[in-house]
Amino acid sequence: MGSNLYLGLVHHPIYDKRKEVVATAVTNFDVHDIARCARTFGLGGFFVITPLESQIQLVERIIRHWVEGAGATYNPTRKESLSLVQVSRSIDEADRTVSDLWKKKVKRVATGAAPHPQSIGFEPLRQLLGDHETPFLILFGTGWGLTREVKDSSDYVLAPIEGRGYNHLPVRSAVAIILDRLLGDRT
Amino acid sequence: MGSNLYLGLVHHPIYDKRKEVVATAVTNFDVHDIARCARTFGLGGFFVITPLESQIQLVERIIRHWVEGAGATYNPTRKESLSLVQVSRSIDEADRTVSDLWKKKVKRVATGAAPHPQSIGFEPLRQLLGDHETPFLILFGTGWGLTREVKDSSDYVLAPIEGRGYNHLPVRSAVAIILDRLLGDRT
Repeated sequence: MGSNLYLGLVHHPIYDKRKEVVATAVTNFDVHDIARCARTFGLGGFFVITPLESQIQLVERIIRHWVEGAGATYNPTRKESLSLVQVSRSIDEADRTVSDLWKKKVKRVATGAAPHPQSIGFEPLRQLLGDHETPFLILFGTGWGLTREVKDSSDYVLAPIEGRGYNHLPVRSAVAIILDRLLGDRT
Repeated sequence: MGSNLYLGLVHHPIYDKRKEVVATAVTNFDVHDIARCARTFGLGGFFVITPLESQIQLVERIIRHWVEGAGATYNPTRKESLSLVQVSRSIDEADRTVSDLWKKKVKRVATGAAPHPQSIGFEPLRQLLGDHETPFLILFGTGWGLTREVKDSSDYVLAPIEGRGYNHLPVRSAVAIILDRLLGDRT
């Protein structure tokens, strides 16, 4: 069994520009960049979460190409990273997959660019992750971010990355920074 | 005058898979993601470095669209980030632009995924950047990374990001992590 931290990239339910709840399309770069970060920091797995059948098939085709197909010999480092990726139809499905594997309830961590009244800091969460007996699922929203319901129903909401008056990082960059803050080498 | 740290994304001279020196094509996602990171961490500027005329025109068209064109009203946060971007034909040209602005020699910092005998750690470089009188230009290589000549002729070579036996981060993710380690909020 790998690390106790799993990552979910949520394409639904998330907000769009007008704060309506939508399902976004999967971005190929998200899958590759986040898989490489997940592999770099030794995550247990990376769930691409989408209920849309067309998107599920797209992601499964990307994974197959690089893990089993011609891509696996062309670029073995992509095989290594994309081996961590699987598709889930919902946050709950990803949650169950991890809970079933660990035979233990998974702790959910929501992320976002805005402050939240009950947020946990990076260092306290880093310490919690040190309890290798408990699995954690950290959720990142695409589009304009995770819905309020997802945040409110999570065990923790992680503090935002503080920019100099600008909080519009791409989700790919936010994932890289947050994984480094939680798991990166600090010696 | 903004921050004393400037970033250069180098498309030539860099290595390809066979360690030959080449010029890579510009990736649209690199420009957007790195510009957003640069804006988040308050960088002085972001140079896309390429000698290829077709690529120079491509990047200038992207910048114009989002900074002056229809994109500026459609998405003002892209205007804010892409305002930091300019094209340079070579590392030396980017270097001169910063040195001329500051009327002071710029310190060059090379980055890479492999260890280097004279590398500087993240914390020492973070402290050096605290001297706001000296401009720094941090260079990231595309493709298979900066050439040995570029590293050897830099003032500093930054230590690599240590992964769990996997050092194949996309340059976009490496930029995000390194800027956070050098300039991110640590309180």
